[in-house]
Amino acid sequence: MPRHDPNVHASTLPTLLLGLLLLIGLFPGIFHSIWSAPLGFLPFFGSSSRTSSPHTMTWFQKGFTLQPRSRGSYLITDQVVQALPELRDYKVGLLNLFIQHTSCGLSLNENFDTDVREDMSDALDRIAPETGPKGEALYRHDAEGLDDMPAHIKSALVGTSLTIPIKDGKLATGTWQGIWYLEFRASKHQRRVMATIQGEKA
Amino acid sequence: MPRHDPNVHASTLPTLLLGLLLLIGLFPGIFHSIWSAPLGFLPFFGSSSRTSSPHTMTWFQKGFTLQPRSRGSYLITDQVVQALPELRDYKVGLLNLFIQHTSCGLSLNENFDTDVREDMSDALDRIAPETGPKGEALYRHDAEGLDDMPAHIKSALVGTSLTIPIKDGKLATGTWQGIWYLEFRASKHQRRVMATIQGEKA
Amino acid sequence: MPRHDPNVHASTLPTLLLGLLLLIGLFPGIFHSIWSAPLGFLPFFGSSSRTSSPHTMTWFQKGFTLQPRSRGSYLITDQVVQALPELRDYKVGLLNLFIQHTSCGLSLNENFDTDVREDMSDALDRIAPETGPKGEALYRHDAEGLDDMPAHIKSALVGTSLTIPIKDGKLATGTWQGIWYLEFRASKHQRRVMATIQGEKA
Repeated sequence: MPRHDPNVHASTLPTLLLGLLLLIGLFPGIFHSIWSAPLGFLPFFGSSSRTSSPHTMTWFQKGFTLQPRSRGSYLITDQVVQALPELRDYKVGLLNLFIQHTSCGLSLNENFDTDVREDMSDALDRIAPETGPKGEALYRHDAEGLDDMPAHIKSALVGTSLTIPIKDGKLATGTWQGIWYLEFRASKHQRRVMATIQGEKA
Repeated sequence: MPRHDPNVHASTLPTLLLGLLLLIGLFPGIFHSIWSAPLGFLPFFGSSSRTSSPHTMTWFQKGFTLQPRSRGSYLITDQVVQALPELRDYKVGLLNLFIQHTSCGLSLNENFDTDVREDMSDALDRIAPETGPKGEALYRHDAEGLDDMPAHIKSALVGTSLTIPIKDGKLATGTWQGIWYLEFRASKHQRRVMATIQGEKA
Repeated sequence: MPRHDPNVHASTLPTLLLGLLLLIGLFPGIFHSIWSAPLGFLPFFGSSSRTSSPHTMTWFQKGFTLQPRSRGSYLITDQVVQALPELRDYKVGLLNLFIQHTSCGLSLNENFDTDVREDMSDALDRIAPETGPKGEALYRHDAEGLDDMPAHIKSALVGTSLTIPIKDGKLATGTWQGIWYLEFRASKHQRRVMATIQGEKA
């Protein structure tokens, strides 16, 4: 009979389907990717936040140590940016810098004239002096030296953390703003900074 | 013979499957949506954060300038809220305000009595004076005038950024808290603020 | 004829496919889960942020009140951590603490010696005194008492909010850092704190 054997056809189909299932089982990622890909071309499908932002949001955290310094104000913008090349990936976000100590501080201040840094350290000495105007003792807490308690006071006033906006892979600081590390103890100390970046990647 | 021709059946099935694949190929969004929709009705499936939050998380960033002001403390809550109608969309989040200058500051303080603002500016003048008690010079950095270095000091003390919680589309500030812009330079300056909102939308 | 009837085969296949579709229709979550599960084992598939972070990102917000206190500096680290057991769930993130008042402050400072807390309150009294050196009045705003305006000044200097990094379910504070609540009013006040946690869950 010239009639085509239906068995051939009927048994080919399940075989193909089984083979496809095996392929999916072995490479689910590729299949899922092909499956989902066209969604990206449909701008008005679903909520707009769904298609754009959540998939690119990430957190990043890194600790680093600053060069040991004695009393003074130091510009560390370059060091911070170099320690965090990850900043470049963020289209919009925030950088939190947090110094894990109680006798130093972080500030945003003038980034050009070194005189400003020296004047700042001196001004803070006047605001939180080691002794009273006649040289009298001011503090109960003096076991670690006369410079210890003033350091804690300056730290409370200046603060130990900064939150800086990120825009298009760069810190959105003003022209004259630089990141300052202020060391309030007289002797050299090595300070640790925890940097936390959060935002939306490009 | 009354036997039904198997060919008809066997060739209909692949045709239907091919048609279905074509439909999926042409309207993947609709299919994916139908496919995923019932997941939303299963509250205990997967982690709760998976089904609720990530899709509504967004970042928003906008720069705006403040009305030029000379030395003084100014309440800018209304101006900030008006500049950021986007705040209303956030169920929970944080607003970061960051002033891109080094001779002014941002603070949260009393929002009712204007005397508080005047007293604050005067108190900061005593904390970071232009000259010593006998009129002697205090600073190396004086090229821009006697008010310049005190402005940098006040800026370091008061701070140049604020992070304010957002709850149900509003700033979660206390009854008496208002957003203050403090200008520390004697002459009028125009200051730029970068606002960054992040959070979960309603 | 010993020939197998093709009808049996051909009609079984669509039945199985229909049954499978019904199963998917009834339990889409399970199917979607099985379908997507192998993706988790493919580290290099897609962008790393896509497979890891967005689904585990969450926001959490909670208000709580501090024990009423009169003028002084108080260590509240334990109280904060106990009020926020949710911190443990976050692999990486930030905790924002925001005190909703204008006559008190939050700071990170020395967590061991109670003398530091007493010295701090005294030092702030010298920086923002109630009267001038000869007992003269300093402030316009004095309706609520001599301690009111100094409290607003201290609040502007010390600040009313903290942003602390979270790492592996714990606050990433340094060995000696504790969370301080500073009350600047002479009489007891009950203060409300808004805590906002954001980050990536483990």
